[in-house]
Amino acid sequence: MTQRIPKHIGIIPDGNRRWAKGNGFQKQDGYAYGLDPGLQLLRLAQKCGVPELTYYGFTMDNCKRPKEQVRAFSSACVQAAEMIAHEDAKLHVIGNTESACFPSQLLPYVNTERQPAGDGRTTVNFLVNYGWEWDMKNGWASRDIPRIDLVIRWGGMRRLSGFLPLQTVYSDFYIVEDLWPDFQEKQFLDALQWYQKQDITLGG
Amino acid sequence: MTQRIPKHIGIIPDGNRRWAKGNGFQKQDGYAYGLDPGLQLLRLAQKCGVPELTYYGFTMDNCKRPKEQVRAFSSACVQAAEMIAHEDAKLHVIGNTESACFPSQLLPYVNTERQPAGDGRTTVNFLVNYGWEWDMKNGWASRDIPRIDLVIRWGGMRRLSGFLPLQTVYSDFYIVEDLWPDFQEKQFLDALQWYQKQDITLGG
Repeated sequence: MTQRIPKHIGIIPDGNRRWAKGNGFQKQDGYAYGLDPGLQLLRLAQKCGVPELTYYGFTMDNCKRPKEQVRAFSSACVQAAEMIAHEDAKLHVIGNTESACFPSQLLPYVNTERQPAGDGRTTVNFLVNYGWEWDMKNGWASRDIPRIDLVIRWGGMRRLSGFLPLQTVYSDFYIVEDLWPDFQEKQFLDALQWYQKQDITLGG
Repeated sequence: MTQRIPKHIGIIPDGNRRWAKGNGFQKQDGYAYGLDPGLQLLRLAQKCGVPELTYYGFTMDNCKRPKEQVRAFSSACVQAAEMIAHEDAKLHVIGNTESACFPSQLLPYVNTERQPAGDGRTTVNFLVNYGWEWDMKNGWASRDIPRIDLVIRWGGMRRLSGFLPLQTVYSDFYIVEDLWPDFQEKQFLDALQWYQKQDITLGG
């Protein structure tokens, strides 16, 4: 289908709260509608031969939001992890496990040994209670996560919002204007198509 | 003119070589045509009330390019710094001064004391022989440079290319398709206009 496939794609699934408001729900109800898109995207990425994905779950800063929102995105992340763990994928959760905001159900997926690529199973990294300052203060805690080739962000914002700053130094950024719960396969395929035309130089 | 003015703008002046090729010159001849745009932009930013700018000069990785190109961009950076130093601006050069690729003429502008904002003079940071890995290995050598609100990149590429990864964690990215030597004031003013509509959350 496409020729130059990114080895590692970062996913910023933004826009759940705006989607909820726009569809007559409470803000915190949006996260649950982001679960199925995450699974669809994973299966599509597998079909396209993308060996590694990193999803932006939530950040330590996000935990300053109203309690009902924190409960809602935290619970959505636990469900998402369980869904991914049932797929043909290797799941690694990364984030600050030492704060109350980290869901204990996800501890089994933290610090799991990275298995070599090439067995056909997609590696999925999931940032949960992540913080770029936390990452740096801990001597680049996320250093096992390799360089990201392509970042796809839903929801129209043109920024990284603290997403793995050292893995994204050379990433190409692709923005989808639609909100994350309005995920469609075409958006992902368009991003891959666009990526074909980008020229990798790594500064050389 | 505009209401929400970024406190600090990052400038990635890309496309000099493509511009040179497209205009019948040798690749390395493009850099000289990027000098006047840099000065125009600085004066325009001052008029708009932007207190701080950071220009991406060249990187340690760029020094792996053919010698005539390295000579050309290095010499352009020395000229650029001299032009800025004659403006109503406070110039700080940052980069790895310990490699042969660092132009010795710029040493007087390295490690200069940062003066407090508010005296009406624009602070201009200039990355010369910079490398994000060098920055990190030296305990965040660029830490005196504050958070960047808006990154404007000329030349159509949608990536940071190692530009101050920790200062750009929350930056909004604005891409100008035109090549840097084709700088026009309107491009910068459009970027400021676009920035008005972005919503700052810092993860909260």
